[in-house]
Amino acid sequence: MAANSFGKLFCISTFGESHGKAIGGIIDGCPSNIVVDYDLIKQQLSLRQNDPLHINKRKEPDEVEFLSGIFDGKTTGTPIAFLIHNNDSKTEDYLQQIKILKPSHGQFVYLQKYGIFDYQGSGRASARETACRVVGGCFARMILKQYAIQIEAFTTQIGQFKVKEPFYLNNLQSANENVLHCPDNNIASQMLSLLQEIAKEKDSIGCKISCIIGNSPIGLGEPVFDKLSADLAKAMLSINTAKGFEYGSGFDSADKRGSQINDLFSNNFQTKTNFSGGIQAGISNGNPIYFSVAFKPIPSIMQDQSSIDLEGNSAVLKATGRHDICVSPRVLPVVEAMAAITIADHLLRYNAYKL
Amino acid sequence: MAANSFGKLFCISTFGESHGKAIGGIIDGCPSNIVVDYDLIKQQLSLRQNDPLHINKRKEPDEVEFLSGIFDGKTTGTPIAFLIHNNDSKTEDYLQQIKILKPSHGQFVYLQKYGIFDYQGSGRASARETACRVVGGCFARMILKQYAIQIEAFTTQIGQFKVKEPFYLNNLQSANENVLHCPDNNIASQMLSLLQEIAKEKDSIGCKISCIIGNSPIGLGEPVFDKLSADLAKAMLSINTAKGFEYGSGFDSADKRGSQINDLFSNNFQTKTNFSGGIQAGISNGNPIYFSVAFKPIPSIMQDQSSIDLEGNSAVLKATGRHDICVSPRVLPVVEAMAAITIADHLLRYNAYKL
Amino acid sequence: MAANSFGKLFCISTFGESHGKAIGGIIDGCPSNIVVDYDLIKQQLSLRQNDPLHINKRKEPDEVEFLSGIFDGKTTGTPIAFLIHNNDSKTEDYLQQIKILKPSHGQFVYLQKYGIFDYQGSGRASARETACRVVGGCFARMILKQYAIQIEAFTTQIGQFKVKEPFYLNNLQSANENVLHCPDNNIASQMLSLLQEIAKEKDSIGCKISCIIGNSPIGLGEPVFDKLSADLAKAMLSINTAKGFEYGSGFDSADKRGSQINDLFSNNFQTKTNFSGGIQAGISNGNPIYFSVAFKPIPSIMQDQSSIDLEGNSAVLKATGRHDICVSPRVLPVVEAMAAITIADHLLRYNAYKL
Amino acid sequence: MAANSFGKLFCISTFGESHGKAIGGIIDGCPSNIVVDYDLIKQQLSLRQNDPLHINKRKEPDEVEFLSGIFDGKTTGTPIAFLIHNNDSKTEDYLQQIKILKPSHGQFVYLQKYGIFDYQGSGRASARETACRVVGGCFARMILKQYAIQIEAFTTQIGQFKVKEPFYLNNLQSANENVLHCPDNNIASQMLSLLQEIAKEKDSIGCKISCIIGNSPIGLGEPVFDKLSADLAKAMLSINTAKGFEYGSGFDSADKRGSQINDLFSNNFQTKTNFSGGIQAGISNGNPIYFSVAFKPIPSIMQDQSSIDLEGNSAVLKATGRHDICVSPRVLPVVEAMAAITIADHLLRYNAYKL
Repeated sequence: MAANSFGKLFCISTFGESHGKAIGGIIDGCPSNIVVDYDLIKQQLSLRQNDPLHINKRKEPDEVEFLSGIFDGKTTGTPIAFLIHNNDSKTEDYLQQIKILKPSHGQFVYLQKYGIFDYQGSGRASARETACRVVGGCFARMILKQYAIQIEAFTTQIGQFKVKEPFYLNNLQSANENVLHCPDNNIASQMLSLLQEIAKEKDSIGCKISCIIGNSPIGLGEPVFDKLSADLAKAMLSINTAKGFEYGSGFDSADKRGSQINDLFSNNFQTKTNFSGGIQAGISNGNPIYFSVAFKPIPSIMQDQSSIDLEGNSAVLKATGRHDICVSPRVLPVVEAMAAITIADHLLRYNAYKL
Repeated sequence: MAANSFGKLFCISTFGESHGKAIGGIIDGCPSNIVVDYDLIKQQLSLRQNDPLHINKRKEPDEVEFLSGIFDGKTTGTPIAFLIHNNDSKTEDYLQQIKILKPSHGQFVYLQKYGIFDYQGSGRASARETACRVVGGCFARMILKQYAIQIEAFTTQIGQFKVKEPFYLNNLQSANENVLHCPDNNIASQMLSLLQEIAKEKDSIGCKISCIIGNSPIGLGEPVFDKLSADLAKAMLSINTAKGFEYGSGFDSADKRGSQINDLFSNNFQTKTNFSGGIQAGISNGNPIYFSVAFKPIPSIMQDQSSIDLEGNSAVLKATGRHDICVSPRVLPVVEAMAAITIADHLLRYNAYKL
Repeated sequence: MAANSFGKLFCISTFGESHGKAIGGIIDGCPSNIVVDYDLIKQQLSLRQNDPLHINKRKEPDEVEFLSGIFDGKTTGTPIAFLIHNNDSKTEDYLQQIKILKPSHGQFVYLQKYGIFDYQGSGRASARETACRVVGGCFARMILKQYAIQIEAFTTQIGQFKVKEPFYLNNLQSANENVLHCPDNNIASQMLSLLQEIAKEKDSIGCKISCIIGNSPIGLGEPVFDKLSADLAKAMLSINTAKGFEYGSGFDSADKRGSQINDLFSNNFQTKTNFSGGIQAGISNGNPIYFSVAFKPIPSIMQDQSSIDLEGNSAVLKATGRHDICVSPRVLPVVEAMAAITIADHLLRYNAYKL
Repeated sequence: MAANSFGKLFCISTFGESHGKAIGGIIDGCPSNIVVDYDLIKQQLSLRQNDPLHINKRKEPDEVEFLSGIFDGKTTGTPIAFLIHNNDSKTEDYLQQIKILKPSHGQFVYLQKYGIFDYQGSGRASARETACRVVGGCFARMILKQYAIQIEAFTTQIGQFKVKEPFYLNNLQSANENVLHCPDNNIASQMLSLLQEIAKEKDSIGCKISCIIGNSPIGLGEPVFDKLSADLAKAMLSINTAKGFEYGSGFDSADKRGSQINDLFSNNFQTKTNFSGGIQAGISNGNPIYFSVAFKPIPSIMQDQSSIDLEGNSAVLKATGRHDICVSPRVLPVVEAMAAITIADHLLRYNAYKL
């Protein structure tokens, strides 16, 4: 029950602080003889560094060094350990912050919980940790590829700009045409303008990311506690700054009637509608799985903020460093990675019980 | 990693189908020497049977038989096993349903996953299973009582009627004055009228339940995957018909700026606002924890529904049995129970690392 | 990580004290559509009550009541809960013992660990708990039967009487001809005479049980920590009064040379010898798996023993109750059950990773 | 349930093949604010490289590089990741072995289980993996030091030479005077002569290692499946080439009577004898815990061995490389490390339930 591990049969453990020597992880439970798709890993890590506003000057791409579990380009079934070196760490940037508490940031609770805090970067609370999840997610995707399962995440809201129609009915092709992977190019433009405005205001903003899992087999998920929906919710809420999760009809369900959103069966055993979001009673039903995740604005902003020091005296936290304006689009590959890990894990669990 | 278990150190496992001899569970990991509060158990089980519209004729209250783990009225530290007998099961009511698929119901996926389905009641997908969670939750609450931690769930939306203000700012006393535990008595009346209307229409309706955990200690939750928010999300999404989870500023965060919802510190180390919902970077920060859960309308409705039989031929599912109109208020003690189990589990995990 | 559970994918949880209303358990992770072999369960439970010296007057056979997870005589894939009622409990027999500590018995450590002890019977330390393992083991065997895997346990030592040849080379048929399941009928007779002598002396005696798992597939077990040998060791040492475990060449290995006990390959990829005991580097190699388990004499004896009371004053523990002389033959089905559960669990784990 | 992890609250995960870039691990669940004892780590790793016969020419000491979880020389409570680089790997030495199967070695089962085998070194089956356990064990010892718990392992048998008296009654001081940590210096000399003789014969030999855990608190271990004895057995059998485990009276128990080995209480609640080996009913009773582990001779020997190739044709496996003669003394720190991890894990579990 290591707290820094996720998944029961396909399991990723991560380690590392944002400004130590390296971050990294172990993928334990990847089946053997899978051809490692290094291009996928490079591409996904690059998407996680996507910076449409060119704010963050960390230029050097994240590179993964594999230490074990791969032989002749294939997985061996043994633990796959990997490192991502922290080339750009600038400890001096962070020296101020140990003295003055950052609002809505992990620093205070870490100090209270552990009695010690690695002030370099944000310790384990740094979003840099998610790069390791992306690597783990790539191996999960290599498994899912054998089942033709596809996972795509999209930006469906930033500020007041939302994709209005149920996103799973849109033409998703257009999502590949804009940097935010928003299914509506016009809304994507408005979102980008808003991001630029927020940047000028030295502020940050929240967003909503949605995700579709296509070609999902029937039967993934366990009936009671380990419902597929419950495990996806945990996966998503474990991502930094995530504030909410909904699948299928989600929060709108509170104002819906059974006669409106019961998914009636067609004669081919599929359903005419998909308000269930591909998951019925915790188990995938063969329809596309879709869900959304709400993210709060990044708490580190380029404005001075009033705060207190470690003794409780009033103090001003000076704006410093360079911070993203919004977790979108960088969070997109992270949402996909956690979805892929969750699905791969349940796929292996499903396999286990087929005698 | 038993799929029918929840919690790592404080662990509840449940078993049983809705129309078998009994349902029940094992609570493993309850500390010893806790005085068993039988009244609490009786009260919470009774709340789970709360039926404001007097629709369901199952009159007999659920009674718990304890088989182990209690001696002289105190927990012994060994597994607490309990049964709740199914006195009212009427198998004949269910005979139709094996032939015709129920829309938005677990039947089809169970049949696909297991190749067999106990057609009596709804098998493990029945909400009756949640009575066992309520029993487990009562033991969790007996632990939390020693830390003065309080957990209260409220109905904050049914249909178009919502509690408008942030519910955690309302006078929560009024929540005890109405059967829906809605913090606004006027809205509660409107909700009840709506439920009666829906009942007449032989339909069902969704709702939103919110929950506050007061006197939460600082430091519960693990930084990366086992964030307190992630484990609460899993706990809530594991409840039947749950469709979404949000905490603190939740989905509203997508349209908020950092400067708006960063929680600034007061000089006493508390924060002036609580948009974080009592959880910062996955760890409780000492403020009240609050979250909401969306539930879909109960899929079993008193109307005929068009469907298919097991061979895929069109068929009509006749309205039968008696079904609740809305999961509120019966789901309230279930939400509280799952919250209590999650908090108790993290409390024990927290204890473990204090040398 | 519930402490009263064993197995990762095929998982048995047990509960109950020896003199409460009932003991029982939950089997979680049994594949669906397995025809339940009720005769096997009856037979194995009856073997666990085997009493060749007719010492124990508990006559009534253990009967299992199933509460869930079975429909139309087949497993449904959901948790199988069962009860074994405690019909013969005689609490009055045990009243003395709360006041005077029993030597080499769980009472003292339970009191220290939990601050409370259910003095009726031996609480969770009672061997009665193993009846639940036998039930779980029967379901494991139903799975193993589909792979033609066989498990047989034998008595190979009681007192000075040992089966001298490596037991796995003997004609095992003879093991079914005597009540101790000893592969040598002559030695079995000597063992039985010894047991009668020990009974007259109001003493107890230890024994060694050996076990063979035939038709084991290649590849069960995980390379490092979850070696099949390690998990079998844990399974066996979890049985009451077990003091040691060895497999293959076992403790004799300490006086063997590599050139003596390296198992050379035949051209059919089997090995000419089986000093490895069917497990190589923690993974089954297709040869018969064999291991032995040492058990201490039952600590409850029919003699008065000098001891102390709860205040530390010298006291005499009067002989009382009726106690077995030796864990053999009653422990044989328990050893087989724990072996079956371990193998079934690893079989499911193996299945999981075959894409 | 990652297969390459051990421990529930104090958890070590290891990775790496013997001839990859590096081996390493993650320690998850180490309490915060523990001063890291780097000298202990250096000393224990050096003991694991102890080579009394100067056979193995790998001269360079193992050095650990820490990547995370330590700040200002103290643990932070977050995962401690570390690497041990493989400086001396000579892949060319191993090229032969992929073609001809090594007797009593993991190669064949790995090939069967995974369909692929990293022929460099012995993959995960290499004893080099145990260096990572030693690092994990050092952190466990840093925790145990706060409770004054001591762990010492000794060589008690090599070939026909055994320490005759119950080793725990000997003067253990002498164990520090000889390289084998044998409690009897004379026997140690005989053992060393035997090892030299075996080396000349280009053979290998088994041994028995015993271990004492002093100052163990009362109450560690869980009653049924997670008995302290069961978890120690698993820990020990997970070590390469381990063939057996016994604690207290161990296998001798099979020829003992209850009246002989029941441990009678003294008035101070300690016991007059310690046949129980410090563990009663699976729970530590405050006496010294002692156990022994049997190890087979190292299967890689400097003689040619008849074998088969991957097609099943007869072939000769030529002697190659340099191999240890006996796992003692190198295995001593590994036994201590696994004992320390097991005890630390149960100590944290014990803490968890003290409200």
